[in-house]
Amino acid sequence: MNCNSEKKLQIFVTNDDGVNAKGLAALIEMVQPYGDVYVLAPMFGNSGMSQAVTIHTPVRMKKISETENLKIYACTGTPTDCVKLAFSHVLPHKKIDLLVSGINHGSNSSASVLYSATLAATTEGIMYDTPSIGFSLCDHNDDADFSACIQFGRKIIDKVLTEKFGAESFLNVNFPKLPLDELKGIKICRQAKGAWREEFEKRTDPQGMDYYWLTGEYVNEEPDATDTDEAWLAKGYATVVPHTLDRTNYAELEKMKKWIL
Amino acid sequence: MNCNSEKKLQIFVTNDDGVNAKGLAALIEMVQPYGDVYVLAPMFGNSGMSQAVTIHTPVRMKKISETENLKIYACTGTPTDCVKLAFSHVLPHKKIDLLVSGINHGSNSSASVLYSATLAATTEGIMYDTPSIGFSLCDHNDDADFSACIQFGRKIIDKVLTEKFGAESFLNVNFPKLPLDELKGIKICRQAKGAWREEFEKRTDPQGMDYYWLTGEYVNEEPDATDTDEAWLAKGYATVVPHTLDRTNYAELEKMKKWIL
Repeated sequence: MNCNSEKKLQIFVTNDDGVNAKGLAALIEMVQPYGDVYVLAPMFGNSGMSQAVTIHTPVRMKKISETENLKIYACTGTPTDCVKLAFSHVLPHKKIDLLVSGINHGSNSSASVLYSATLAATTEGIMYDTPSIGFSLCDHNDDADFSACIQFGRKIIDKVLTEKFGAESFLNVNFPKLPLDELKGIKICRQAKGAWREEFEKRTDPQGMDYYWLTGEYVNEEPDATDTDEAWLAKGYATVVPHTLDRTNYAELEKMKKWIL
Repeated sequence: MNCNSEKKLQIFVTNDDGVNAKGLAALIEMVQPYGDVYVLAPMFGNSGMSQAVTIHTPVRMKKISETENLKIYACTGTPTDCVKLAFSHVLPHKKIDLLVSGINHGSNSSASVLYSATLAATTEGIMYDTPSIGFSLCDHNDDADFSACIQFGRKIIDKVLTEKFGAESFLNVNFPKLPLDELKGIKICRQAKGAWREEFEKRTDPQGMDYYWLTGEYVNEEPDATDTDEAWLAKGYATVVPHTLDRTNYAELEKMKKWIL
């Protein structure tokens, strides 16, 4: 299976940077050769929203544009809401062949998977038994260059479709900030151990009241490891990490079986 | 180590149901015998917020009450923000012996760990190298009875402190909705495979405009398994699942090493 194949696929696209993000347009360009594309993305940016769902307020949805093979909607919900709302009211057969999310403006490697709404949408795709891939580029710029991502992303999609990969795992794909001719290849690897060392910075508003603003930086806790997403990104490779929905720590579970409670 | 031990611990408490929830008061009661308690909880309910952080707006914080051994604050952020803000501006030594979150009004077993802000706070605790436990009661009622949780919760805390458990894993504790004399015991087990089958219900507002409201139900995809949190809760046991920050799917990673990309 590849983008020149005869069979038209049904593909769903979302992101967390919002319906007007350049990364979303790049992702649509990446997947359009494969078939019919349905897009439902947040109206505005939802970075750092993790797998949040909207429970206490209703969600509004609006059709943005429609051609024969590309329908674009936006809604006031989170990326996770977008997936659920699409399966309820956008996808004509309530079933798709592939879910893609991104391309995120900024890295989602290592511990960022915990906070990323881009990847939360792919987690949600797995819940609907759909092969799901999240794409991110290590460049926060609004006007980032996604051209290398489009070409390399298709290689990964082709493989996922050929291998019929997807029921148990979603893929987290990160691209280094490099032009096409400097991108060295694609590495399949594990999530690096790391953490966001974040501090809330205290400030004072014009009325003399305190407020706090989130700042912080990522710390790689395995700087010497060679088999992690962080390590391969630093060497100029795109990385693919398979993630699981099962968050049980089986090694600890085995140890804890000795506990008497 | 137990709640009658001489050494006073430094304990941080948060939740996702907000600073006025009965479950938070129950959790404070559970941990007060262990030492000095610092609370920073959201002003209002944050259910389903997962590990969302507040990036685009500032966060406000307010002291609610203060006695010698119990200081309570509330803020406009998410539970994950609460942990980060506490380490920045509330905890006097920027270090604690134990983080507890909850007691959630409602189950957080199985796939709920993905959406739960109660458990996101414990994930955050592990990032700060702190033993962290999330507690939930399978009862959504505002006036739920948490008395059995308080007694059984202390058994789990005692064990965590004795075993010096905590650097790699946070614990997800769920209690069935049962009075103390019917709660059968505590089981250490794995996360059940399941999914929230959610639909957005379409409605029309008084102005004739459509809106969508999230509804849904949990589906246990392993109804015959006997070693999961869902299975033990159904039998009347409290459950303890150790969770990991590493979301790599190592089984899939091994298979994918054959891919040529």
